[in-house]
Amino acid sequence: MFDVSACFAGIVGEDHLVVGARIPQEYGHDEALTAPPIAPGYVARPATAQEVSDLLVAATRFDVPVTPRGSATGLSGAARPVAGGLVLSFERMKAVLEVDTENHVAVVQPGVTLAELDQEAGAVGLRYTVYPGELSATVGGNVGTNAGGMRAVKYGVTRHNVLGLEAVLASGEIIRTGGRISKVSTGYDLTQLIIGSEGSLAVVTEVIVKLYPRLVHGATVLAPFETVEGVLEVVPAIVASGLSPSIVEYIDDRTLDAISAFLELDLGIAEKVRASAAAFLMVALESRDKDRLDVDVEELAGLVVDRGALDAYVLQGSAARTLVEAREKSFWTAKAVGVDDIIDVVVPRSQMPALLRRTQALAETYHATVAGCGHAGDGNVHLGVFCPDDDQRRKLLSDVFALGLELGGALSGEHGVGQTRADHYLELEDPAKIALMRRIKAAFDPAGILNPGILPAAV
Amino acid sequence: MFDVSACFAGIVGEDHLVVGARIPQEYGHDEALTAPPIAPGYVARPATAQEVSDLLVAATRFDVPVTPRGSATGLSGAARPVAGGLVLSFERMKAVLEVDTENHVAVVQPGVTLAELDQEAGAVGLRYTVYPGELSATVGGNVGTNAGGMRAVKYGVTRHNVLGLEAVLASGEIIRTGGRISKVSTGYDLTQLIIGSEGSLAVVTEVIVKLYPRLVHGATVLAPFETVEGVLEVVPAIVASGLSPSIVEYIDDRTLDAISAFLELDLGIAEKVRASAAAFLMVALESRDKDRLDVDVEELAGLVVDRGALDAYVLQGSAARTLVEAREKSFWTAKAVGVDDIIDVVVPRSQMPALLRRTQALAETYHATVAGCGHAGDGNVHLGVFCPDDDQRRKLLSDVFALGLELGGALSGEHGVGQTRADHYLELEDPAKIALMRRIKAAFDPAGILNPGILPAAV
Ligand SMILES: Cc1cc2nc3c(=O)[nH]c(=O)nc-3n(C[C@H](O)[C@H](O)[C@H](O)COP(=O)(O)OP(=O)(O)OC[C@H]3O[C@@H](n4cnc5c(N)ncnc54)[C@H](O)[C@@H]3O)c2cc1C
Ligand SMILES: Cc1cc2nc3c(=O)[nH]c(=O)nc-3n(C[C@H](O)[C@H](O)[C@H](O)COP(=O)(O)OP(=O)(O)OC[C@H]3O[C@@H](n4cnc5c(N)ncnc54)[C@H](O)[C@@H]3O)c2cc1C
Repeated sequence: MFDVSACFAGIVGEDHLVVGARIPQEYGHDEALTAPPIAPGYVARPATAQEVSDLLVAATRFDVPVTPRGSATGLSGAARPVAGGLVLSFERMKAVLEVDTENHVAVVQPGVTLAELDQEAGAVGLRYTVYPGELSATVGGNVGTNAGGMRAVKYGVTRHNVLGLEAVLASGEIIRTGGRISKVSTGYDLTQLIIGSEGSLAVVTEVIVKLYPRLVHGATVLAPFETVEGVLEVVPAIVASGLSPSIVEYIDDRTLDAISAFLELDLGIAEKVRASAAAFLMVALESRDKDRLDVDVEELAGLVVDRGALDAYVLQGSAARTLVEAREKSFWTAKAVGVDDIIDVVVPRSQMPALLRRTQALAETYHATVAGCGHAGDGNVHLGVFCPDDDQRRKLLSDVFALGLELGGALSGEHGVGQTRADHYLELEDPAKIALMRRIKAAFDPAGILNPGILPAAV
Repeated sequence: MFDVSACFAGIVGEDHLVVGARIPQEYGHDEALTAPPIAPGYVARPATAQEVSDLLVAATRFDVPVTPRGSATGLSGAARPVAGGLVLSFERMKAVLEVDTENHVAVVQPGVTLAELDQEAGAVGLRYTVYPGELSATVGGNVGTNAGGMRAVKYGVTRHNVLGLEAVLASGEIIRTGGRISKVSTGYDLTQLIIGSEGSLAVVTEVIVKLYPRLVHGATVLAPFETVEGVLEVVPAIVASGLSPSIVEYIDDRTLDAISAFLELDLGIAEKVRASAAAFLMVALESRDKDRLDVDVEELAGLVVDRGALDAYVLQGSAARTLVEAREKSFWTAKAVGVDDIIDVVVPRSQMPALLRRTQALAETYHATVAGCGHAGDGNVHLGVFCPDDDQRRKLLSDVFALGLELGGALSGEHGVGQTRADHYLELEDPAKIALMRRIKAAFDPAGILNPGILPAAV
């Protein structure tokens, strides 16, 4: 009798297929806080695009849904498999195939982690600038979620840093899009369409990413403010200044307290200032030239103090790195203190104060607490929501997402819709667009085999 | 008896519909050199998205193909209508609706020209950085072709500078995509899919564009080289230098001669240098700070001379502007001297010398002459092709496009496929991708009413 797992094993080899109860629980979830593990039926670790192609053809034949998986650090449940489905894991496709110093690109396999790519690019003075807080994430996962991160304010998000793809369609066809070129006007931009599609349109098997020169001189300014709105009001002026900061983050005091305690950090902020500060702005500058950096840092410090900062601490070297790392750890800290959910609404920069003020008011109505930090330069706010009652929390989130849209934004700036926001997204998005996305999905994947747990196929 | 033109006139008003023989010839073509005028049946000038929607519904009902038209400065025949079809002209939808100085965006109607937008943004110290050589082009046309231009090396092309759209589907549904936000991860990126689709997926009725601060200090370095390859070999080093030039162009001597004669220009280059130079590099720097600019210009001049330039002239103010304007005029010059076609192959920056060398060899085989200039920082070469025999020229182009692809590039970096390159594109592109694009086209426009003269519907 013919057997599905024998067929999958025939493609990737016995050693690279795990079936049923032998599958470790980690393959059943990502880091989304509200998406408990599910048991997939199969985990395959392909080594080549051709193996991926064969797996997709087989999965279609046997009607087994397929979920591509990077490091599963995603925060929306987009890499959570379908029960009984096939997980494609890229643990064996993680090579940096080339760092091209002439054209400033790297050609990588999807399973390479950001830490690994940074190491290889750094060895020749270059950098992949997409910088989410978790460097064990993969480039394939970045493409899936259109990841952003701290440096997006200067360098853009994943879609601005990916120039081309090799991808496998549900039919098994292997296509190549884009190239080592930063512009092209021939046909529809399939690269951009696949980026951010959360594994629902095609499986990515190679990525051409843009690299930038590493600017060697850097400093970070940390500025406490009396109110959260105060921090956020100063952001448009910083972005407009032409100082071209590489990082513009804010952290509220509750979050900074929690991180400092969790990491046993001392940031050297005067006790008095700490006591009267409700939020902190963190801005990083970088330069090819030490003198220019110093002048720019002074201008920046002046700018924030003029606009209401209680002080401006200039951190260099390891102190600056510690601060950035602390910010990176905010998710783990929030998780450790038992946050119920984390959202990442994005609004026009100028609307951040309104978003935060009105979100606080909404939280009070639902007897919930919200606290957080965010990529302030991009209008992207990460809020931890403490509200254990599922029903109440669902309503609060629905109101906050609607508020984000009302202010001209979207319900996620970088984490994605995944499985955990599909119902909210469907509730808020124009039905004409949802219907159009479903037709696009069908144009790529008529049998609906690819990551069917997420929109637009889901629900 | 019911009449199509009465229906269209009922939507836009009698005054804004032109029919049949009354239609001026200019509505029948764009600037593509090999696409002679065609006679459309109707030209409608809608005033609102709702009128566009009504027109599309009516056109579908009567099976009249529709071609959106900006200023028809396009170079691929993408705005050339279908015989007897309906041209949608945006002459009445050309308002700058808002310049938002806090979020650094402008909200514009599609018919606004680049010159008009530049004026409004410039009034508050900002700039829309997409800068093709022809400032009578519209923002809607930029979206249609994914226009590039001289500043793309620093600021990216249209797709990097458009944050959101209002667009009308063939069904008449009016959708909004994106917003005044630079990142979003909710659903497929319809903004990016529509950009570069040459009016074949949706009609754009509003565009949200990114604006940047105008940097007030600028200078341009003009460097003659003994060979064209010499110029192109230095380009990767300039882009890699971190000097962040806003323009990196090259011009070959034949083209510079023609432009100088056409415009009666004197660029003040020493006679001896002029005589031994086969090509010129033109690099613009800009800065917030005059002193930094001066230092950077010196570094740049040193860099090009070290790498083989015969000299380096630093032009400021009006001399620099004259040079950039001369470069802008290269198309009109080539047209005036009777060029047979102009192509804009793009390759990885490092492959430009190989592209030019091998293209020259190909041209010789076909007894043709090629000369040109290009956006060297982007690997995008604009070549005038002198080869009056249609059949020979077709073969030459086919070989050059194949060469571009072989070197890792594409047949157009910014002009597009349109009507004039559809056959070449189809010949060279992967059939699996063409088939996929056709399915995407059908997902947007099942009746095939929108710009059916161009790919992927055409041929
Ligand atoms: C501490 C922490 C901090 C974070 N900070 C940020 C941040 O600042 N900014 C940000 O944007 N995100 C952030 N994230 C979220 C996460 O790191 C990113 O979403 C990242 O892009 C996910 O990469 P991954 O390899 O873990 O992908 P996964 O979670 O495994 O997958 C993500 C999506 O991509 C798809 N996918 C994966 N590989 C492929 C492939 N080869 N082909 C097709 N689809 C594929 C999956 O199906 C899924 O839909 C953070 C997460 C944590 C835990
Ligand atoms: C002298 C000269 C120099 C040039 N230099 C450059 C250059 O450096 N870089 C570059 O990229 N291009 C250049 N071009 C080409 C041209 O200027 C650009 O392609 C420009 O984007 C076309 O704008 P347009 O308004 O003229 O569009 P059109 O030619 O009218 O239309 C172009 C395409 O857009 C579609 N379109 C127009 N409006 C809409 C709408 N509202 N909704 C949907 N689709 C629409 C049309 O159907 C068509 O497919 C140059 C042209 C000339 C004549």
